[in-house]
Amino acid sequence: MLERFWKTQDYGAHASTVHRLASELAVDAAQRDQAGGTAWEQRHLLRESQLLSLSVPVEYGGPGEPWPLIYRIIRRLAAADGSLAHLFGFQHLQIASVVLYGNEQQKRRLLDRTLTDSAFWGNATNGLDQRLLIHRGETGLFLDGQKSFCSGATDSDMLNLTAVWAHDPTQRVFISLPTTRAGIRILDDWDNIGQRQTDSGTVIFDRVELSTEEILGPPGTAGTPRATLRPLVSQLILTEILIGNALGAVGAAIDYTVNSARPWMSSGLKRSADDPHIQRRYGHLWSGLHAACALSDSVQQRLQGLWEAGVSVSAEQRGELAIDVFQAKAFAARTALDVTAEVFDSLGARSTTRSLGLGRFWRNVRTHSLHDSLDYKYQDIGKWLIDGDLPVPSLYS
Amino acid sequence: MLERFWKTQDYGAHASTVHRLASELAVDAAQRDQAGGTAWEQRHLLRESQLLSLSVPVEYGGPGEPWPLIYRIIRRLAAADGSLAHLFGFQHLQIASVVLYGNEQQKRRLLDRTLTDSAFWGNATNGLDQRLLIHRGETGLFLDGQKSFCSGATDSDMLNLTAVWAHDPTQRVFISLPTTRAGIRILDDWDNIGQRQTDSGTVIFDRVELSTEEILGPPGTAGTPRATLRPLVSQLILTEILIGNALGAVGAAIDYTVNSARPWMSSGLKRSADDPHIQRRYGHLWSGLHAACALSDSVQQRLQGLWEAGVSVSAEQRGELAIDVFQAKAFAARTALDVTAEVFDSLGARSTTRSLGLGRFWRNVRTHSLHDSLDYKYQDIGKWLIDGDLPVPSLYS
Amino acid sequence: MLERFWKTQDYGAHASTVHRLASELAVDAAQRDQAGGTAWEQRHLLRESQLLSLSVPVEYGGPGEPWPLIYRIIRRLAAADGSLAHLFGFQHLQIASVVLYGNEQQKRRLLDRTLTDSAFWGNATNGLDQRLLIHRGETGLFLDGQKSFCSGATDSDMLNLTAVWAHDPTQRVFISLPTTRAGIRILDDWDNIGQRQTDSGTVIFDRVELSTEEILGPPGTAGTPRATLRPLVSQLILTEILIGNALGAVGAAIDYTVNSARPWMSSGLKRSADDPHIQRRYGHLWSGLHAACALSDSVQQRLQGLWEAGVSVSAEQRGELAIDVFQAKAFAARTALDVTAEVFDSLGARSTTRSLGLGRFWRNVRTHSLHDSLDYKYQDIGKWLIDGDLPVPSLYS
Amino acid sequence: MLERFWKTQDYGAHASTVHRLASELAVDAAQRDQAGGTAWEQRHLLRESQLLSLSVPVEYGGPGEPWPLIYRIIRRLAAADGSLAHLFGFQHLQIASVVLYGNEQQKRRLLDRTLTDSAFWGNATNGLDQRLLIHRGETGLFLDGQKSFCSGATDSDMLNLTAVWAHDPTQRVFISLPTTRAGIRILDDWDNIGQRQTDSGTVIFDRVELSTEEILGPPGTAGTPRATLRPLVSQLILTEILIGNALGAVGAAIDYTVNSARPWMSSGLKRSADDPHIQRRYGHLWSGLHAACALSDSVQQRLQGLWEAGVSVSAEQRGELAIDVFQAKAFAARTALDVTAEVFDSLGARSTTRSLGLGRFWRNVRTHSLHDSLDYKYQDIGKWLIDGDLPVPSLYS
Repeated sequence: MLERFWKTQDYGAHASTVHRLASELAVDAAQRDQAGGTAWEQRHLLRESQLLSLSVPVEYGGPGEPWPLIYRIIRRLAAADGSLAHLFGFQHLQIASVVLYGNEQQKRRLLDRTLTDSAFWGNATNGLDQRLLIHRGETGLFLDGQKSFCSGATDSDMLNLTAVWAHDPTQRVFISLPTTRAGIRILDDWDNIGQRQTDSGTVIFDRVELSTEEILGPPGTAGTPRATLRPLVSQLILTEILIGNALGAVGAAIDYTVNSARPWMSSGLKRSADDPHIQRRYGHLWSGLHAACALSDSVQQRLQGLWEAGVSVSAEQRGELAIDVFQAKAFAARTALDVTAEVFDSLGARSTTRSLGLGRFWRNVRTHSLHDSLDYKYQDIGKWLIDGDLPVPSLYS
Repeated sequence: MLERFWKTQDYGAHASTVHRLASELAVDAAQRDQAGGTAWEQRHLLRESQLLSLSVPVEYGGPGEPWPLIYRIIRRLAAADGSLAHLFGFQHLQIASVVLYGNEQQKRRLLDRTLTDSAFWGNATNGLDQRLLIHRGETGLFLDGQKSFCSGATDSDMLNLTAVWAHDPTQRVFISLPTTRAGIRILDDWDNIGQRQTDSGTVIFDRVELSTEEILGPPGTAGTPRATLRPLVSQLILTEILIGNALGAVGAAIDYTVNSARPWMSSGLKRSADDPHIQRRYGHLWSGLHAACALSDSVQQRLQGLWEAGVSVSAEQRGELAIDVFQAKAFAARTALDVTAEVFDSLGARSTTRSLGLGRFWRNVRTHSLHDSLDYKYQDIGKWLIDGDLPVPSLYS
Repeated sequence: MLERFWKTQDYGAHASTVHRLASELAVDAAQRDQAGGTAWEQRHLLRESQLLSLSVPVEYGGPGEPWPLIYRIIRRLAAADGSLAHLFGFQHLQIASVVLYGNEQQKRRLLDRTLTDSAFWGNATNGLDQRLLIHRGETGLFLDGQKSFCSGATDSDMLNLTAVWAHDPTQRVFISLPTTRAGIRILDDWDNIGQRQTDSGTVIFDRVELSTEEILGPPGTAGTPRATLRPLVSQLILTEILIGNALGAVGAAIDYTVNSARPWMSSGLKRSADDPHIQRRYGHLWSGLHAACALSDSVQQRLQGLWEAGVSVSAEQRGELAIDVFQAKAFAARTALDVTAEVFDSLGARSTTRSLGLGRFWRNVRTHSLHDSLDYKYQDIGKWLIDGDLPVPSLYS
Repeated sequence: MLERFWKTQDYGAHASTVHRLASELAVDAAQRDQAGGTAWEQRHLLRESQLLSLSVPVEYGGPGEPWPLIYRIIRRLAAADGSLAHLFGFQHLQIASVVLYGNEQQKRRLLDRTLTDSAFWGNATNGLDQRLLIHRGETGLFLDGQKSFCSGATDSDMLNLTAVWAHDPTQRVFISLPTTRAGIRILDDWDNIGQRQTDSGTVIFDRVELSTEEILGPPGTAGTPRATLRPLVSQLILTEILIGNALGAVGAAIDYTVNSARPWMSSGLKRSADDPHIQRRYGHLWSGLHAACALSDSVQQRLQGLWEAGVSVSAEQRGELAIDVFQAKAFAARTALDVTAEVFDSLGARSTTRSLGLGRFWRNVRTHSLHDSLDYKYQDIGKWLIDGDLPVPSLYS
């Protein structure tokens, strides 16, 4: 039903792939949401789609697609399947991490593997979880500990992770490893109410060997404003997952309105679709959702500008972009929460049948929007408006 | 955590029973919500509680408790378990139906059975579903067809149902039958996203014998304004299920804030409970929820007044009460939707762990609030404000 | 248009007086709002109405009407004229102050004067303004300084004021004086966007003589929880001014819808009043407003209970009442802000003609709702919910 | 205070002019809002600024600036003075009308006059007012009747108007006349609560002579989809006036927070600007406002695309643009209403002092947002989403 909208979105050379993949994911997204667990087949579809390497820069042999295109694809996929869109988005966050933090040799090696082996990347980089330590053993370095919220680790080929030195936990490093490395154990313990197939569970590291060249950099960009673009790339991924879920909810609700809903008994109408209140509600919800899209679109362009500017990005430019990103994220979250809840108002009680799966969009958004505190995002924006203060970059959000 | 609130609610002689029952239901409400299906044990607790006969009038040997007390108990139980509160409330709706529609002999017989056998009542009265017909056969009357949304039919002793005459579908009658009657088949097909243990599935009637004395009335109050109090009694039951779920969500969220939530990393606080934004949010949500309680409380008093007035109730009094009830219902629905969604904003991503069950309150409210169209409720209120028009009583809402 | 609502409000023996006074105030309320300044004639109407002594206790020869009745009258008057309702409410706040803080002799003298001379009370008690000092001069005490936000001081007979001792500004006392006392100068400097005829300007005290018996107490109730009921009495006055203005806005808007508004050109309707969106909006706004009324009503009953309990009121009872009052106040403010702004959505551009005066309700509410911070009210409620903390009584709110 | 924002807005070669003009308008905008009436001096500033001819196409000797630039200037001016921004915007709507409807000769003549005489255009084109008729007299055509809501007619040099033929009121024509033409009388009767210096009053036409060449076209584009771009150009002007007012409100409020507001007494803070609730609120309001800007920006680009496409614009393209414009307009209206009301929540009661003028932003938005029904805009959007129906172009909105 949203075909009218999707046709306005430009996917460049990847249009047919994107549309096909979205359709394939949509087929059983509701059923897979109920089942939870790993979406092996759908991960395979992603691998086959060639979309996993989109963000590999041209200088490293990749297509070097700009961020706005990648975000647009996340939006499209999230309308069909929030979890798989998440995995797709985080793939590119891991690639971005290598691009930002790796030295030249590391970038060549890791990005090449992404291109030739269609490596699927997972992560164990949760900045709020400091339990993973690097020890210096007799035979070299090793990792010990665990990380929570490791989206995409299951069935991944490569794993990005952050860890702190056991002898100095204030020093954090960024590491890229093959997921098959001995001692890495990925638990199947993600069972949350939304984004249920993101495998965002725990990864255990039991004396996992580590070579120094697996620690990204130096030099890399660590310590530069450019390096701190990573959480902004990430926040806009979250933004598009939120928006995409809301678009998915509207699309599914309109389908239901047209094909299944009954007009309210006292309305005197033959079609629910002709109900003035229902028409008004869709128009109202869509306006807010379209505003969320427009805001995110415009911020993505600014991110792309700074991304292309390379190491010349100043702390002020990064800070102002952060303020923009925070707005796009917060606005998308609030809008998606409202939209995914209110679409039901235009339907009837039968629309809550579990097999229909219309509730998954709200559950996805409710879960996903708690990644970081909107209150503090708003406060950061307010401080900037009032005093011009720029937010301190964090590794988390 | 809401003990401070519950202690302000007066349950009369039933206080200890109500509190105990609420605690017992709360124990595994989250798990049972996931499982769905019939809550056999908890239904048994309700039977044992003696609360199933509260509304049987004194003149028929019952305790004759007023509606405000019954509503208050629904509110309390719904905070623990929306489904069981629903079954408890609908029990009293069925008793009210007998009181309103039955003739003297029927009232004696049916209410006595409720008292002596602790009969649990189910219903098959969905006014929007006209598929159940009464036929005149050679050996007498029989029922044939089906009804949807038959909350509480499973494991019931008695069943209220509405049916139309096969020869004249404009004539609807109200019937009370033993659920064990041959030919009644209750499907276990309720699998919706909320109110999951209300057994609100389909009941099939396959040539079910019917005696004329099982058809309530005449005389009864059919055709009088008093008879049309039934949907108002029902709407206030729905209202309290909505409010109770929202109270349950706030209570569970505060527990989590105090016992499990971590302060936001940049807040500089040791306790999430000390966060000014979180304190503000609870205060804001509670104010709205308290307003919903106060509005419902005051409307319940007016309902009780008309209930006690008996057949002298005028169409105008009934109509003005309906306008009040619509407001209480609509306000409770909107408030409960907001509250059950927004409580998560004060928690973190870990609060979406499925086993915690914090999402069930929103799912219950989202499902339950679709029983009837709020848009048309608001329109009815608006018409009354503008032109003084009173809503036409319906059998549904 | 709201006659249907007002008839449900019980004004006891004062019904005809209240309705007449409300009608008289309504006649030119819009014009007087534009003019601003002192409403001499309307203040005279209040004096003549005998309503200024309603709260004088029976034991001091007055009618001793309960707070809920007085609040109900404020609500009614505020729908016609927010400013005069404010003056009426603050009259009773001053009487309450004498009752709470005065010793027996003071109460006799001051309340008697209120009864026999129909004394109109003003105030200069703004707790946030500490510029008024009591000095010990050679010939006795005198007051020097000023106070802002002195609602009702103009044209008053008696004046309540608070001042601190020059030698110890931490000691604050409550004083009742004749307004005619030499050295008191009331400025005509209130020119705010709302509540424009409340004369809430500045009062200058230039060596104003003061006798010790004009300082209320001892003993009085100073230092007891009972004494701290005063700001709660005051907050509920504010609450009803907010609610009353919102009711006034709805009433005026419905009048306009019925008598003046044109249907939207593409609606195909003959009457704006038949527009489904407009009907829905009134129903929606009314539901929230009715909830605000119900919440305030119920809290007023609790206040009355504690008021009657006298000095036996415990700090805990007072604190829990404060939590309730804060909710009623905050909910009324938010609702009244929404209602007074949104009613315009049902009208057309011509409804903004200045002479119609439909904008004054929002301006009144916007101004009045800033008396104290809702954010901190919400935080107080949140702290109570989370930790059971009761708010520290303040002299202001 | 919003300088951080304004610097991100690109005004091309006109930057210094725009910033200077905005500053000049801001000086006494609050005072002129109170006074109402015609802003003679400020209209003169606009004339001198050379900005009145920005939209005259290059092929007619003008600068031919694109719509997004003009809208951006409206936004900037409206933050300082909503009325003058309105007059500026409507100047370009009149120029657009000549471009769309005039034949070649008319365009040459009228646009040339705009360039050489700095003609200020007013309008009498209200499509909802059909009282202005064209009669065929003995000596030729003449106009008789009146028009309401004629923004900018006072002190104008040229006047666009619409009228219907007396002999066939279904035939409407568009006319451009010198305002000095005998028989035209402009009443000074605009006295509404907002946009007070737009002179949107009544114009009386008393047997005003008319030559056929003053009737725009033929050929012009009448009857083509291109011609129906006019109301869309107009709706985006309204959109930017709404957004600009909201930006002005935020800017003024932040100034007040920083320079005048006192921290809440129980906050323990020295600066109101450090209050977490106040910071959060500004961040929240700004996010929504920024989304409104982004949506409007993106729709303006689409409008510019169709504008440049000339007569090749299809009905479908026009219809889809209309859907986009409706969203931008409706979202801006709702957002601006919220923002201009809520900014006060971060301030105290003293911020309602009339001389500060902080209330004018809400009054402007409340008045301006009633130009057309948002409910029906939303319904149009909903119909398009559901069924793909495109809105029927109207002459009004």
